[in-house]
Amino acid sequence: MAFNQQDTECMALALKLSKLGRGSVGANPMVGCVITRDDNIIAQDYHRHYGESHAEVNALDQINHKAHNCNVYVTLEPCSHQGKTPPCVKALINANVSKVFVATLDSNPKVSGSGVRLLRENGIEVEVGLLENAALEVNRGFFKRMKTGLPFVTSKIAMSLDGRIAMKNGQSKWITSDASRNDVQKLRSQNQAILTGSGTVLNDNPMLTVRIQELNSNPLRVVIDSNNQITDKSLNIFSNDSETLILNESNTKILENGKLNLESALETIGSLGINNILLEAGSGLNGAMMDAGLIDEFVIYTAPIILGSDAKPMMQIPLKEMSEKISLKIIELTQVADDIKIRAVPL
Amino acid sequence: MAFNQQDTECMALALKLSKLGRGSVGANPMVGCVITRDDNIIAQDYHRHYGESHAEVNALDQINHKAHNCNVYVTLEPCSHQGKTPPCVKALINANVSKVFVATLDSNPKVSGSGVRLLRENGIEVEVGLLENAALEVNRGFFKRMKTGLPFVTSKIAMSLDGRIAMKNGQSKWITSDASRNDVQKLRSQNQAILTGSGTVLNDNPMLTVRIQELNSNPLRVVIDSNNQITDKSLNIFSNDSETLILNESNTKILENGKLNLESALETIGSLGINNILLEAGSGLNGAMMDAGLIDEFVIYTAPIILGSDAKPMMQIPLKEMSEKISLKIIELTQVADDIKIRAVPL
Repeated sequence: MAFNQQDTECMALALKLSKLGRGSVGANPMVGCVITRDDNIIAQDYHRHYGESHAEVNALDQINHKAHNCNVYVTLEPCSHQGKTPPCVKALINANVSKVFVATLDSNPKVSGSGVRLLRENGIEVEVGLLENAALEVNRGFFKRMKTGLPFVTSKIAMSLDGRIAMKNGQSKWITSDASRNDVQKLRSQNQAILTGSGTVLNDNPMLTVRIQELNSNPLRVVIDSNNQITDKSLNIFSNDSETLILNESNTKILENGKLNLESALETIGSLGINNILLEAGSGLNGAMMDAGLIDEFVIYTAPIILGSDAKPMMQIPLKEMSEKISLKIIELTQVADDIKIRAVPL
Repeated sequence: MAFNQQDTECMALALKLSKLGRGSVGANPMVGCVITRDDNIIAQDYHRHYGESHAEVNALDQINHKAHNCNVYVTLEPCSHQGKTPPCVKALINANVSKVFVATLDSNPKVSGSGVRLLRENGIEVEVGLLENAALEVNRGFFKRMKTGLPFVTSKIAMSLDGRIAMKNGQSKWITSDASRNDVQKLRSQNQAILTGSGTVLNDNPMLTVRIQELNSNPLRVVIDSNNQITDKSLNIFSNDSETLILNESNTKILENGKLNLESALETIGSLGINNILLEAGSGLNGAMMDAGLIDEFVIYTAPIILGSDAKPMMQIPLKEMSEKISLKIIELTQVADDIKIRAVPL
């Protein structure tokens, strides 16, 4: 079926609203909702905080749940089960809505398809698939975790034009511009957790916090510590700004080579309800994550400098033949001050 | 003084015309000329071939050298000396022009300033400096060679996202896309010579020719051959498509370390009237050229692939401290098919 322009605009608005929940909905998906009557928007809202009411109920509240002859545009299939809040499907039926547009079905096995079915059984017309790709993109972390148990992993890399992330002696302050480092703060705030390795913690002693107050977000800090090296509680990683999780042999599977099983580490992180995690690591952990096929996206800030052939590589990953090359697809190319920002996904 | 819009438009046209001479004017600068009467363009031409008539005379020919009450816009100071052709200043005086706009003075010591002086002595008004920066850019190679004796060196690099130009075993076919390699053909045609090292010749056996027929250009092929390794005349570098110059101890100064003195090599190349040369080399020669401060511009094609930490670096140049980093300025950032094209200049 074809959707008309009014429908598309309403769903686009609902998607825009949904993103306002980024950083505060926790393990939940971000959801937006718009309600119209006679082609006029009469209510619009989104899911604001983990554990609080859903987008549909927030919007219905604005019109005292009187939605006779109304169309509802919601970015994710309304829930039909009792969770932390009563099911949204019930609220939509009780409010007497006429038609519901759903961008995409919920991939949570507890819900998928059942919300739509229940609405239809109650005489409400339902259309699924309006701006579906955009809706899948907004909650890509949630959908990945529902499907695989693992969070969506974005690797942030700050490097020189010749692909180096630090001098041989470990110096890496600063490769990129203030503007790029500011952009990284936003990137952190868009993730529920930040993942790094013990080498980076010991070498750079980073805070790994979001230092822009307006962003108001405190991602969980997670350290891969295969050799139990992170024992000093005065390290910045243990500052009061946020929680810190150290992954080592006590809580993660170990590979035959003595290293942590990184997939198992991500499973642990996923089990905490982390949908999106930002990898900010050195050559070693980035190489190991790439080699294990665990990186979903790269955000690379390339500074217009040459650090030379002795400096540390973007990722430690030895390949012999050209046929072993790893292919990516560039999905965004922009300039941030003097740096180049590249978003790319493994193919 | 301020130039009006009509003046600026005429000089911009003259600059555009000048570039049509690229690839055929040899050691000469590219020059364009526009002639107006009562604000109407009545003639426009450019210097077409080395040894043939100059832009001003070509344009005057179109109006039978009757230029009473005419303005002349020329991208380089008209010559006042007898060279391979009679001086242009004389032709302008004889044609009785009223005013001459000159984008920039000739840096050739035989000419600089004297053309303008002679015109003024003959009662012709002269304005210098209209679109001067653009005029300097068009002939940047010519101006550099006039000033230093060395050609303008553009280093073309095809590399992976992690800054690697070949596998450890030497494989480099193909890192970048067809579209990027096609773009390199154009880059070659815009240079009078291509510079490479013996390692690249022996490893890749490249033709280093322009294979797009319409571009109709055959840059000189120059090989830095410190160790006299290029003896096999059946190598592609010796194909009939173009001339080839091998630089070794027989024609170039040698450094204490036994390597060729690269500045001396560029002087030799400059003495042949080469204004612009394209460096297409491996890690070693690129590193040595960079280290010697002999690269004026980079054109880098970055493919969205990872070749890994064992692969060959963009340039072999060992640096120890962050303070030794080499800074560049990015002057162009575009996408060519799936690749990123970066033009950058050392700061």
